[in-house]
Amino acid sequence: MLHWLKHYRRAMLAGDLGAGIVVAMMLIPQGMAYALVAGLPPVAGIYASILPPIVYALFGSSMTQSVGPMAIVSLMTGAVLAPLATPGSGLYAVLAAQLALVCGLVLLACGLLRLGFLANFFSRPVMSGFTVGCALAIAAGQVKPLLGASFPHWHAPSAALGLGAIAALLLAKHYLEVLLKRCGLPPNAAGIAAKLAPMAVVLGGLAIATSLGLQAQGVAMSGEVPAGLPQLNMALSQGHWRALLQPGLLIGFVVFLMSMSAAQALAQKRNQKLVSNHELIGLGAANVAAMASGGFPVTGSLSRSAVNFAAGAQTPLASIISAVLLACALMAPTGWLALLPLPVLAATIIVAVLGMLELDTLRTAWRYDRGDAAAWLVTCGGVLALGVEAGVVVGVLLSMGTLIWRASRPHIAVLGRIVGTEHYRNIERYPAQTQPDVLLLRIDANLFFGNVEAVGERIDEEVSAHPSARHLVLVMTAVSSIDTSALFALGEWNAGLKRRGVALHLAEVKGPVLDRLRQSDLTAQLAGPIFLSTAMAAASLHKGREGDYAEYI
Amino acid sequence: MLHWLKHYRRAMLAGDLGAGIVVAMMLIPQGMAYALVAGLPPVAGIYASILPPIVYALFGSSMTQSVGPMAIVSLMTGAVLAPLATPGSGLYAVLAAQLALVCGLVLLACGLLRLGFLANFFSRPVMSGFTVGCALAIAAGQVKPLLGASFPHWHAPSAALGLGAIAALLLAKHYLEVLLKRCGLPPNAAGIAAKLAPMAVVLGGLAIATSLGLQAQGVAMSGEVPAGLPQLNMALSQGHWRALLQPGLLIGFVVFLMSMSAAQALAQKRNQKLVSNHELIGLGAANVAAMASGGFPVTGSLSRSAVNFAAGAQTPLASIISAVLLACALMAPTGWLALLPLPVLAATIIVAVLGMLELDTLRTAWRYDRGDAAAWLVTCGGVLALGVEAGVVVGVLLSMGTLIWRASRPHIAVLGRIVGTEHYRNIERYPAQTQPDVLLLRIDANLFFGNVEAVGERIDEEVSAHPSARHLVLVMTAVSSIDTSALFALGEWNAGLKRRGVALHLAEVKGPVLDRLRQSDLTAQLAGPIFLSTAMAAASLHKGREGDYAEYI
Repeated sequence: MLHWLKHYRRAMLAGDLGAGIVVAMMLIPQGMAYALVAGLPPVAGIYASILPPIVYALFGSSMTQSVGPMAIVSLMTGAVLAPLATPGSGLYAVLAAQLALVCGLVLLACGLLRLGFLANFFSRPVMSGFTVGCALAIAAGQVKPLLGASFPHWHAPSAALGLGAIAALLLAKHYLEVLLKRCGLPPNAAGIAAKLAPMAVVLGGLAIATSLGLQAQGVAMSGEVPAGLPQLNMALSQGHWRALLQPGLLIGFVVFLMSMSAAQALAQKRNQKLVSNHELIGLGAANVAAMASGGFPVTGSLSRSAVNFAAGAQTPLASIISAVLLACALMAPTGWLALLPLPVLAATIIVAVLGMLELDTLRTAWRYDRGDAAAWLVTCGGVLALGVEAGVVVGVLLSMGTLIWRASRPHIAVLGRIVGTEHYRNIERYPAQTQPDVLLLRIDANLFFGNVEAVGERIDEEVSAHPSARHLVLVMTAVSSIDTSALFALGEWNAGLKRRGVALHLAEVKGPVLDRLRQSDLTAQLAGPIFLSTAMAAASLHKGREGDYAEYI
Repeated sequence: MLHWLKHYRRAMLAGDLGAGIVVAMMLIPQGMAYALVAGLPPVAGIYASILPPIVYALFGSSMTQSVGPMAIVSLMTGAVLAPLATPGSGLYAVLAAQLALVCGLVLLACGLLRLGFLANFFSRPVMSGFTVGCALAIAAGQVKPLLGASFPHWHAPSAALGLGAIAALLLAKHYLEVLLKRCGLPPNAAGIAAKLAPMAVVLGGLAIATSLGLQAQGVAMSGEVPAGLPQLNMALSQGHWRALLQPGLLIGFVVFLMSMSAAQALAQKRNQKLVSNHELIGLGAANVAAMASGGFPVTGSLSRSAVNFAAGAQTPLASIISAVLLACALMAPTGWLALLPLPVLAATIIVAVLGMLELDTLRTAWRYDRGDAAAWLVTCGGVLALGVEAGVVVGVLLSMGTLIWRASRPHIAVLGRIVGTEHYRNIERYPAQTQPDVLLLRIDANLFFGNVEAVGERIDEEVSAHPSARHLVLVMTAVSSIDTSALFALGEWNAGLKRRGVALHLAEVKGPVLDRLRQSDLTAQLAGPIFLSTAMAAASLHKGREGDYAEYI
């Protein structure tokens, strides 16, 4: 905690200050827009950008993470709250803050229990498919505010403003940086200035809408933004804890996933180290802070953190500076913020989420592993067809499903002796000699609940295929662990084989695995000792020499 | 399908007939009792015991499975339907049948998609904890019908009848078999006759209740059982499909789990083979049949199947015989079935689920692997605290959680050369020589999304700890697969190491893994070739000899 402050050097201040200003200018339109995605008044997005990043700066472990509203988490917040309260109502705002609290407590609990490994529940293709599905869902949700009416209808002034803003943003995205460089700006400054296009477009939209009197023509505006800092919020709806628990768990998981993937991508570039359990604590505290200041669930945003990084942020001080600037903006007159046209905010959201539509992972997976490509497609489709909450569940199940499915087809080799040596190899690949009475099987996987059934079936088949075998030796060179399910399975295989007149043996069991097995009854149940090497097992078990077990123990 | 019928021999008939009669006598009280657990009229339990086992006999792959009502699945059915309709109402019965349909369709779909590996989503300790949790929940739910009032109150005649029945059942369970043997019955017959104690106790309860006029004193009775076969049921509530989908998925999963574990335990004893995808089809068809005949979700029951097995069942004909006998019972006068006292049925349920309270798995796990023991306890607690549906989810998450947690701590060894040989071994275990410029790391796990982060961190640490290393060789002897997530990670490690002036290399990549990698861009990104052996990598990369790559490709 605050490790970075102790080592703060004056030279870092310029970078932090610049990044803080840039991020603050990004956050005004972004925070307001993502609050709208969550079904909240725009000011909630600014509240969620002040206290949470300051708190994260105290507890988190990433140097360049920008914590605040984020598109996917806002989408989830909206999806969770829509059935519980009317958007715009007081209850809705209370539940949004309460959801941040639940989510924050979940993250804190996971951090204290050191459950940082939970981020590994999503495979990369699933994460990518989930992100793309959410981006499409968010964009689809913004079509109505963009056009001022439900497609295929539109409200002409709104649609003109919105589509014009999209055109301007796309042009800026593709050409502004080049243009600014040609105008003599240094490359880095040009890149960062180009990232401020949304703010410029929003201000331009404000100017156009005001000068043409578009509000009177029915263009929706962002609505009044109360001046002043957020009040301390302690309002909670006692009747809704139960309804918020499961969504809070899911959103907490997504908050952690999104933040970790953003922070990791940036930490790698500077060889910095992230501690996932510290991240959980930092994000948890930030979400509790979001609740206390009337916000909604927040997380680290990859796009914003990348700007923070590129603009020169060295430490979390950059985030503190941007939070202070936003607080100042709220203390200044805020009347102008009420006049931001919603079609323009919708346009900034649509263009922002277009950046999340990356198909590279799908393309690579398609060439490399069709199963992973299918997981990508199903997760993306799941978000679109079943909603974002179900999409998370589908994603976890698919990640785990591919894992269990692969585990359910373990590689197992029948071994034979390379003539004239003590080496035992897969008889399908090497010209190796087998003994009719001793069957040697090498199991090339850790034994655990996901593959014991498949291993058991294979053992069955091999024993049936070698009716003269009186001993079966499992060669455990590749087995680094045996879980409780597999321990039971070994006992059952032993009993089943005994009924068929075959004795089960183990060979080449690794030290740590053997230490574990000695804690169980299994070693006593086996017909013989555990052999140090395959060669010893084969020699000792060969017919007529069964009495020689002892020497190999 | 019907494979067994083609090979039917006359000698099998005696066993099948005997088992069919015994199971039918078990099923009358059991079916009625489990219907009560599901919140349904007792006759639904008998309906669920007629058509489903016949249909299962046509499609399933187990020879001795007894499909029908089962305690845990009934508990889940009741938990799902309670918030949707009033127990006893027509809607409740319609929804129960519809739930069986959803569950059946889910199982059929999984069977056609060959998703039999899904049974591997539960580890053994989690399965055991889940079963015990459900047993306790079922027993707790029967305290009220047992006592005729909510504890700590009781209705004296009901409580006397119920507690008396429990005492009789426990005595029968522990002593009846021995007693019957002493009376001269052959051991096997004595064992089977003892299993019919519930039927005898129920009939005894009926006699006592009728002769003492207990119904007039307020003892609840099972209620009218309409005579005649079940009518074809096609009633569905169109408005409830959505509400039944998720529970149907969960119940389908549990139906499959329970049936597989029961069938496997018995198939092993006779060296018969189960095909999990056929099981899915058989169970799916049985549940569709349960819907069509006005029942509720059904599955294979371990306790009943074990009786079927012990009573000599050779083929599914035994189940067909017991179904026909139940159908006959419904066509005979059924007035007596209306007079079974509920406290006695509750007693049979409580004693039956006491048999599910096995603590052996917990005991073994406690000694062998505390993580697995914790998973047992949390799953059992989850069922009791959060309900049986949430318990399934908790169980899956814990099974996967322990898996991912273990994966997130992969074993990685720094290798050195055993002096005077070409063998490279873990330097922590063997006196082995290292080269300052070439760092050799052996990764003892398949690379996948669950461990890439941990492997990446370890690589980082090792490179930081060996600042003079200019080459990092990952020795892949133990890596049997690299998924898409790990493929991306390898690319990122390569880029990150390049920035630090370290070249990444791979050595001893297994054939199938190499074939896969060649489909990707990774091999082109690496600084050098993939080395056939660790020795070649070490020799070729040692300073001054870097030009010699080519010969080792």
